[in-house]
Amino acid sequence: MTWQMARRTARMNPSSIREILKVTERPGIISLAGGLPAAEAFPVEAMRDASARVLRDTPREALQYAASEGLPGLREWVAAHLAESGMRVDASQVLITSGSQQGLDLLGKVLIDAGSAVAVESPTYLGALQAFGVFEPEWVTVPCDSEGPLPEGLARARGARFLYALPNFQNPSGRLIGAARRQGLVAAASQLGLPIVEDNPYGDLWYDAPPPPPLAALWPEGVAYLGSFSKVLAPGLRLGYLVAPPELMPKLLQAKQAADLHTPGFNQRMVLEVLRTGLLAEHVPAIRARYRARRDAMAQALRSHLPDTCRWELPQGGMFFWVQLPAGCDASALLPKAVARGMAFVPGSAFFAEGASESSLRLSFVTATPEQIELGVRMLAETLKEAS
Amino acid sequence: MTWQMARRTARMNPSSIREILKVTERPGIISLAGGLPAAEAFPVEAMRDASARVLRDTPREALQYAASEGLPGLREWVAAHLAESGMRVDASQVLITSGSQQGLDLLGKVLIDAGSAVAVESPTYLGALQAFGVFEPEWVTVPCDSEGPLPEGLARARGARFLYALPNFQNPSGRLIGAARRQGLVAAASQLGLPIVEDNPYGDLWYDAPPPPPLAALWPEGVAYLGSFSKVLAPGLRLGYLVAPPELMPKLLQAKQAADLHTPGFNQRMVLEVLRTGLLAEHVPAIRARYRARRDAMAQALRSHLPDTCRWELPQGGMFFWVQLPAGCDASALLPKAVARGMAFVPGSAFFAEGASESSLRLSFVTATPEQIELGVRMLAETLKEAS
Repeated sequence: MTWQMARRTARMNPSSIREILKVTERPGIISLAGGLPAAEAFPVEAMRDASARVLRDTPREALQYAASEGLPGLREWVAAHLAESGMRVDASQVLITSGSQQGLDLLGKVLIDAGSAVAVESPTYLGALQAFGVFEPEWVTVPCDSEGPLPEGLARARGARFLYALPNFQNPSGRLIGAARRQGLVAAASQLGLPIVEDNPYGDLWYDAPPPPPLAALWPEGVAYLGSFSKVLAPGLRLGYLVAPPELMPKLLQAKQAADLHTPGFNQRMVLEVLRTGLLAEHVPAIRARYRARRDAMAQALRSHLPDTCRWELPQGGMFFWVQLPAGCDASALLPKAVARGMAFVPGSAFFAEGASESSLRLSFVTATPEQIELGVRMLAETLKEAS
Repeated sequence: MTWQMARRTARMNPSSIREILKVTERPGIISLAGGLPAAEAFPVEAMRDASARVLRDTPREALQYAASEGLPGLREWVAAHLAESGMRVDASQVLITSGSQQGLDLLGKVLIDAGSAVAVESPTYLGALQAFGVFEPEWVTVPCDSEGPLPEGLARARGARFLYALPNFQNPSGRLIGAARRQGLVAAASQLGLPIVEDNPYGDLWYDAPPPPPLAALWPEGVAYLGSFSKVLAPGLRLGYLVAPPELMPKLLQAKQAADLHTPGFNQRMVLEVLRTGLLAEHVPAIRARYRARRDAMAQALRSHLPDTCRWELPQGGMFFWVQLPAGCDASALLPKAVARGMAFVPGSAFFAEGASESSLRLSFVTATPEQIELGVRMLAETLKEAS
């Protein structure tokens, strides 16, 4: 008995990040690889209270089937929350998703045909490459500098179904698209008729200054926007949202229904309870302070230990440093040696749709403590020294 | 600005069931349309205890990112549970999904190319048509009688990627594939090299006798099997599982990762806590008793009120009666009239991939009380009488 698989499965290969995460689950390894939020910062008390309230006040509603669109109160909260960043969104444009990863899957279903072009940054988020890849696009990589895509480079993406961009503290590069660049990108994209999928998991994790208004605020009819509760509350509830122009909503809703009927109502109610306590007003600044200290610890460690031949910039938010190794240095080949010394990172090559850079790597500063970061970076430096 | 949509969106149209459910949310309507489990039977106390225990004992693990495969303890529970029905499954073959609906999506991704044939029963589950339809198959409907697909009819499906079958108390027809027919189907399918996707959301809801062993027990290498906690515990947690031959697992896991990273760890831990209390041993028989009484009430009401020109069989389990109206009677045209009288059903035409029968309808007996069922069926009979 042989099962004939779909052609797309040829593209579906194990995520190197996941495989590495497995190795680094071994006790004693300092992992700067994963993008796991600091679990000690999860608002456990608030979750306990919220869970108890939901199961006391609306247990049957929380445990019953629910609307595919999401809980009305949560959709309204999202619309109101986005207004603070300059987006004018009606709750009817908000689709609650099972994490923002699912938003990528739904957009892929609704917008990508096999062989159609999809434009991405260089580097870009691995999970988006995986989600969109299922629908067999042709990748177009737009030229980028330290501030993200170059507006004059978007012409390469003419005719693409959309440009996927992560403007705030990008995973993996940490870079921020500045206000003027955002204006330039939207001007170029609207002239080309090139829609944008804007992914914003990290916008609340700024350490120096809040990011500029999202692309979706500048060009509402041309941008589909993804947000998440994973970084400001907890990822294990798998709760995100997708905001899209009204013309896309009916098809996105159909895709959502076909994918999993709806996102768990219990989880939606729990998070809405937490949000209504006003917890975020104190909790998000506390997370920022915690992560800022870790970012600074990593910057200090990189300055102290890494050779001058390595280049990196200080990320103004998010979770990651992106390190350029000396030319000719292969990060993937370095990884097992680093693991043998007791630390792990993610080789940069995983984050490119095409033309992968072998000499870059990603370091996360949010999961490990400042002491572990100092030790982990020192091990990385020793590994580099030994290999050169 | 126009967004170019994927070709598949032409197939993604509003579910008539969902649209009807919206109408029937109006107070005062007796809905025999939806497939909602009886919310008053949800084990709320057990959920409360489990939720409190999870957030007391493993809050950080429950709220953190988790493995795409699912919680190891839950995968082991599923493997052990399936052994009771004759399936020999290793926990490594169990993928925890966000409801069994997601299992359909993942199988579609891994097995269906645009234009490849997929075989279905007549009628079949609407949600499967929606989930698989996203991947643009050509439907092949296999001939069925009151016991499901005819083994000699499978030849029509030669070369199809799989046959999708719901052997236990099918949604919508309520029919059960008997033991001998199962043997015949597996013999025919294995000779043809035709894999089977076996969907089993209702197997525990038997009212007269337990169903025969699943197709997956008879032909492990040729069957992918879907199960769910929605009917025995609660659907709002969105928790199901997919069991597949080992050769499919790596690609299914990649598809799962790309779809939503993982099913919420909190929900998995909560359900595992509930399962470990042994609750199901008492809870499932109690659900059976409740639903059996409602089935019997509906059978009594149908006997009392429906004209002899309508045909239906007593379902031995599940949630639904399937009623054949007199030839020429159009159930879709009847629906608004029934709603005007105060009751709702689902027209049968929604449940066919091709060659829809206009003169059938589905009635759910699990959500409404016996009194409401009696009243709703009487309204249906009056609507029929008025229309004839």
